[in-house]
Amino acid sequence: MDADFEDLVARLAEIDDVQSSVALLGWDQATYMPTGGAAARGRQLATLEQIAHARQTDPALARLLDRAQPAAAREGEGSFAARLVRAARRDVERATKVPAAFVGAFAAHNATLYERWTHARPASDFAAVAPLLARSVELSREYAGFFAPYDHVADPLIDLTDPGVRAADVRAVFTALRAELVPLVEAITSAAQVDDRCLRQHFPEEEQLAFGLAIAARFGYDLARGRQDRTPHPFMTKFSLGDVRITTRVRADYLSEALFSTLHEAGHALYEQHIDPRYEATPLAQGSSMGVHESQSRLWENLVGRSLPFWRGQYPALQAAFPAQLGAVPLDAFYRAINRVERSTVRTAADEVTYGLHVIMRFDFELELLEGKLAVADLPEAWRERARRDLGVAPETDRDGCLQDVHWFGGHVGGAFQSYALGNLMSAQFFEAALRAHPEIPQEIEAGRFDTLRSWLAANIYVHGRARTPDELVRGATGKPLEAAPYLRYLRTKYGEIYGL
Amino acid sequence: MDADFEDLVARLAEIDDVQSSVALLGWDQATYMPTGGAAARGRQLATLEQIAHARQTDPALARLLDRAQPAAAREGEGSFAARLVRAARRDVERATKVPAAFVGAFAAHNATLYERWTHARPASDFAAVAPLLARSVELSREYAGFFAPYDHVADPLIDLTDPGVRAADVRAVFTALRAELVPLVEAITSAAQVDDRCLRQHFPEEEQLAFGLAIAARFGYDLARGRQDRTPHPFMTKFSLGDVRITTRVRADYLSEALFSTLHEAGHALYEQHIDPRYEATPLAQGSSMGVHESQSRLWENLVGRSLPFWRGQYPALQAAFPAQLGAVPLDAFYRAINRVERSTVRTAADEVTYGLHVIMRFDFELELLEGKLAVADLPEAWRERARRDLGVAPETDRDGCLQDVHWFGGHVGGAFQSYALGNLMSAQFFEAALRAHPEIPQEIEAGRFDTLRSWLAANIYVHGRARTPDELVRGATGKPLEAAPYLRYLRTKYGEIYGL
Repeated sequence: MDADFEDLVARLAEIDDVQSSVALLGWDQATYMPTGGAAARGRQLATLEQIAHARQTDPALARLLDRAQPAAAREGEGSFAARLVRAARRDVERATKVPAAFVGAFAAHNATLYERWTHARPASDFAAVAPLLARSVELSREYAGFFAPYDHVADPLIDLTDPGVRAADVRAVFTALRAELVPLVEAITSAAQVDDRCLRQHFPEEEQLAFGLAIAARFGYDLARGRQDRTPHPFMTKFSLGDVRITTRVRADYLSEALFSTLHEAGHALYEQHIDPRYEATPLAQGSSMGVHESQSRLWENLVGRSLPFWRGQYPALQAAFPAQLGAVPLDAFYRAINRVERSTVRTAADEVTYGLHVIMRFDFELELLEGKLAVADLPEAWRERARRDLGVAPETDRDGCLQDVHWFGGHVGGAFQSYALGNLMSAQFFEAALRAHPEIPQEIEAGRFDTLRSWLAANIYVHGRARTPDELVRGATGKPLEAAPYLRYLRTKYGEIYGL
Repeated sequence: MDADFEDLVARLAEIDDVQSSVALLGWDQATYMPTGGAAARGRQLATLEQIAHARQTDPALARLLDRAQPAAAREGEGSFAARLVRAARRDVERATKVPAAFVGAFAAHNATLYERWTHARPASDFAAVAPLLARSVELSREYAGFFAPYDHVADPLIDLTDPGVRAADVRAVFTALRAELVPLVEAITSAAQVDDRCLRQHFPEEEQLAFGLAIAARFGYDLARGRQDRTPHPFMTKFSLGDVRITTRVRADYLSEALFSTLHEAGHALYEQHIDPRYEATPLAQGSSMGVHESQSRLWENLVGRSLPFWRGQYPALQAAFPAQLGAVPLDAFYRAINRVERSTVRTAADEVTYGLHVIMRFDFELELLEGKLAVADLPEAWRERARRDLGVAPETDRDGCLQDVHWFGGHVGGAFQSYALGNLMSAQFFEAALRAHPEIPQEIEAGRFDTLRSWLAANIYVHGRARTPDELVRGATGKPLEAAPYLRYLRTKYGEIYGL
C-alpha cells in the first residue's frame, strides 16, 4: 500500500468516524435523549454533518482518488482498491454537488421535524408538522435540482437509496406487482378469515423483548456486537462493524408488533455484522443498497420468521414463555394468525400480501408531492381516499394515516419507500437460490438451526458489503437479474394454502 | 453584536457541538455500548477530539478573539463579551500549546485503557492495565511539558481542572487538613462504633434507583432536561444545558451506594442545569472549576443529604419504600448509620471524615508517579501500605485498591483528585453563607423544600457558569477567600454529636 493510498484510507476512516458519530447522535435522540436536549441536538447533528460533508468534498480527497485510479485499475476490477475507489468516488461526486450550507440546513430542519413528529404522531396532530413537511418537500426538490438533468425529479432521490434505479423503472415494476396483488388480496379477503385473537392478549413487555431477542441471537445476531433498545419507530443503526444496534417498539396487547419488528431489524443487523472486516471504516462497510438491505430484513422476518417450519421448531418455546396465553392454542392456529391477511392501515403491521400496496401508495404520494400535483395540506385526505381504494379501509386518525411512518419526518420526501417492495422481490429470489443450493434448509430451520442459510447469505451477499452493486449481487447469487416471479410464487403458494384458494 | 463577534460565537458553538458529541460517545461507551464497539469507539473519540482541537487552534479563531478584545474591554470586565473572550482565550491558548497528534494519540490511548479497566477492575487484574497506565504517566508528563516552565510537573495538570491552583498550594492545604483529620478519625474510631447493619440488607435495585431519583428531582434536578443510567463508575455529563445526565451504580446489598452517588451526581447536574441559558454553546456554559463543581455535589450529597433535618423529612418515605428493611429502624439509628465513620478502603463509599485522607493519598501518589519516585509496578503495594498507615486498613484486592477509581484509567495522571478535597472545603463555606442569608433553610429542608437553598446557590454560583473564577465565586458568595475553618467546624460539630466526643 503506497503512501497516497494509505492517506486515502485514513481520510475515509475519519469521514466514517464523523458519520458514525452522527449515527450515534441520532440513535440517542430516538432512544434516551430527554426532550430538553432537542434544540442543541439539531445543532450538533448539523455541525457534524457539515464537517463530514466538508471532508468529503475536500479537493485533496478527490485528488487522492484520481491518483489511486491507475493502481486500482491494474489490480483489477474486483480488487479491494478498485471497489473502494469506485464507492468512494460515487460518494465524493454526490457530496460535491450539494452545497455545504444546504447539508447543514437540511440536517437541522430534519432534527426539528423529527422531534415535532414524535409528539405530533401520538397526538394525531398533522397540522403541527404540515408546514415543516411542506418545507421538506421543497428541500427534497431543491436537493434533486443539484443533480439535474434527470428524467424525473425523484430519480436523484431514489438513486440515493437504490443506486441506478429510476422512477420509471419502479413504476413499471409496481404496475406489474399491483396487477397481481389486487386480485390476490381480493381472493383472500373473500375467503373465510383467519382468527388472530390469540395474538391480541396481554403479553408482558419484558418477556416479549426477551423472546424476540433470543430468536435474533439464534439467527446469528451477535449481542457482543449489538444491542436492542426501544424507540417510537424500529430501526437498525451501525457505529462500526463491532457495534450494530437494533430498536423495536412493544405493544403489551399485541404479540406481533415487537416480535416481527425484532426479526426484521435483526435481518438488517445480520447483514452489517457479516460484512468483511477488512472493509471496516471504509465506504464499503455498508449494504449494497436499501433494497438489498430490505431483502434481508424481510427474508428473516417473513420467509423464515413467519414460516411453518420455523414455528414447528420454536412454537413450544413461545408457548413456554406465555403458557396462559398460548398454551391451548395449536401450532396451526398460531401460524395462520401470524399470517392473517387483512385490509389494514399501518404498513409496519401489515401482512406480506397487502404490504406491497402500502408501499406503492407511499411511492405514488412521494412522486405527486415532488411533482407539485399534491399539496401537503391535502395529504391526510388523499391518504384516506387512497387507503380506502387500495386497501379497502381508511385510517380513523392521521396517527395511523399519513403520520405513521418516520421517513418523511426525518429525511427526504422521495426515494424513501420503493426499497421495501424491491427488497420483497429480492428476498424470495435469494431464498429460492439458497434452497436450490441447500435443500436441507427448511429441515434445519425446523430444528432451530440457521447456520446453513446464514452462511449462504453471508458468502453470497453480506460479506461483500458495498463492494458489489445490487445487480451484481442478484446475478451472482441467483444467476438471474431481479425478477418478480419468485416473490409472487411464494405469496400464491403460502397464502393459497392458508386461505384454501 | 458585530459580524466578527457573531462569527466568533458561531465558531465557539461549533467547537461545543463537537465536544458535546465527544461527551456523548463517552457516555454511550460507559452505559450501553456493546464490547465489540470498543476499538472503533477509540478511533471515533480520537477523530472528534482532533477535529475540536484543530478548530480551537485555528489561527482564524485567535484573530477573532484579538479583534473582539477592544470591544469587550469597552463593555466592561463583567460583560458577557469580556467574560466570553477571557474563557475562550484561555481554552485557545491551552489548546495551541498541545500538538494535534498528541491529542489524538492520548484520546485513543484513554479509550483503550478505559475499556481494559472495565474488565480489569472486576477481575482485580492490575497487571492487565499496568503497562497502559505507565504509558498514561508518560503521556501526562509529556502533556505537562507543553506548558513548561512550571514549579511542579503536576501544575499544568492541576490547572486544567482547578485553574490557577498549583501543587504547592494544594500540598499546603492538605497538610493543614491532614493535621486535623488524623486526630479526628483517631478520636472517632476510639469511641463506640455506630451500627450500620440496617443499610446492609437486601434492597431491590429498581426501587433504590426510583427513590434516589425522586429525591434528586425534589432537589430540583429537571428530568425533562436529564436522565439517569447505570455505569461502573458514577458520573455527570452534559450534551447541552437542556441535556444534563447522571449515572450511578447500585448494590442490592447496600443502600448507601446508589442513594448517595445519585444525590452527589444530582448536585453536579443542578449546577449545570442552572447556568445562564445565554451561555449555551459557549465556553461559559460549564462549571467554574472542578473544585467548585465538587463543592456542589458534596453539598447536596452530604450537607443536605446526610443531615438530620433532611431525613426527619424524608425518612418516612424511605421506610414506606422499604418497609421490611427499615420499618422497625428508628430515624436516629438510620441517621447514625449513614454517617458511620470507619477506616475503609473505597473512596466513593467513604464517610465524610476519612474521605479527605483518601483524596490526599491519591494526590500524593499522582505527584510521586509524575516525579518518577514511584513506579507503576509498585503502585499496588504502595497503595496497600499507605492505606494501612493513613486509613488503618489495607484493601484485600487491587479492585478495592489502586484499580478502584476510573480517573487514571481514562485521563491524566495528575490533577484528578485535589478538586474533591477543595470542593469539600468550599461546600461548607458556601453552606454557612447560605444559612447566614436564610436561617430558615434547615426548617425548609426538614419540610422537604429545597427552593431557598437552591435559589441562593443558583444566584450566587450556578447562573454564572464559567463567567466567574472560583476565587470570584467564593469571595462573592461568602465575602471571604477559600478557608478550611467552616468545613472542619462542620465535621467537628456533626461527628462530635454522633460519636459523643
